[in-house]
Amino acid sequence: MPLVRISLIEGKTSDYIRAVGDIVHNSMVETINCPPLDRFQIISEHNKTELIYDPNYLGINRTDNIIIIQITLNEGRTTDLKKALYARIAQMLEEKLGIRPEDVLISLIEVRKENWSFGRGVASYA
Amino acid sequence: MPLVRISLIEGKTSDYIRAVGDIVHNSMVETINCPPLDRFQIISEHNKTELIYDPNYLGINRTDNIIIIQITLNEGRTTDLKKALYARIAQMLEEKLGIRPEDVLISLIEVRKENWSFGRGVASYA
Amino acid sequence: MPLVRISLIEGKTSDYIRAVGDIVHNSMVETINCPPLDRFQIISEHNKTELIYDPNYLGINRTDNIIIIQITLNEGRTTDLKKALYARIAQMLEEKLGIRPEDVLISLIEVRKENWSFGRGVASYA
Repeated sequence: MPLVRISLIEGKTSDYIRAVGDIVHNSMVETINCPPLDRFQIISEHNKTELIYDPNYLGINRTDNIIIIQITLNEGRTTDLKKALYARIAQMLEEKLGIRPEDVLISLIEVRKENWSFGRGVASYA
Repeated sequence: MPLVRISLIEGKTSDYIRAVGDIVHNSMVETINCPPLDRFQIISEHNKTELIYDPNYLGINRTDNIIIIQITLNEGRTTDLKKALYARIAQMLEEKLGIRPEDVLISLIEVRKENWSFGRGVASYA
Repeated sequence: MPLVRISLIEGKTSDYIRAVGDIVHNSMVETINCPPLDRFQIISEHNKTELIYDPNYLGINRTDNIIIIQITLNEGRTTDLKKALYARIAQMLEEKLGIRPEDVLISLIEVRKENWSFGRGVASYA
């Protein structure tokens, strides 16, 4: 049920982009009960004029390796589950790709379960 | 009041893309009381590294012709209206463009009516 | 805490695009208590087949200079604050860039405060 939009600054390889998508998805499976096959991601690359970030907001030092992840998902996860998700994504991106945890921005948009159709023109969860 | 984001894998003609937009809009007019002139759509094409879908989630067989439609709209539609919308979009995409209903993914994001300005710097519905 | 997506039709200069981003951000700081450093924006340019707008919806005359601004932000702003934001963005875009207020479309998506991680894998506001 999640739809994931990942935005980064252009210049990365296809392998890197694919790995970022894999890690974000696996982290969702491991922490917030996302079904393993429930993977739908739209990744977009932007030039530096078009992806703008503050390099210091909240005292967190960000670089051009910033990854902005916006996840639309069903409402109802607890704050603890969300925290586990944030931690897992940042940890795995660092472990597998050497991405600094400071460069990982995550935004969640919660929706109702009847707000999805995953094909065949039917509501998938209602 | 809806803002529609449509994502597909690159390689389609302008005519095809335009027709997809037409069909999604007309389906909204026909099923969920969207005003005929209330059409605002952002369509983006992605390469296969950047639009990732599961080919079997929920037992639905998807192909590279997948179309991901995310609609931001005012809250308050019933589940029945949403179901009518899903069915209509899938049916018309199949009828007019031969798109398999399995390849149509729809996600709704509901917002309050005061969350829109359609021009002139004023709240359009509040 | 806001994440801002700005979409426009291709053909503008980098300076113009940068100025649009500046104005949208400054307007948020001035009207809805957005922290000055809290700036995260994704700007995308589209060709005319892919950014579709109605030139007359609600009696507002729009042109290819349309700017579509979708802001994900924490819930809880009053309607008056939202109205002040819409007015300020439209006014400043006109004053500084000569953009017609009719060409400014704004959409807000509200989320809970625990729905953000601005880095380090932690929930930034919860």
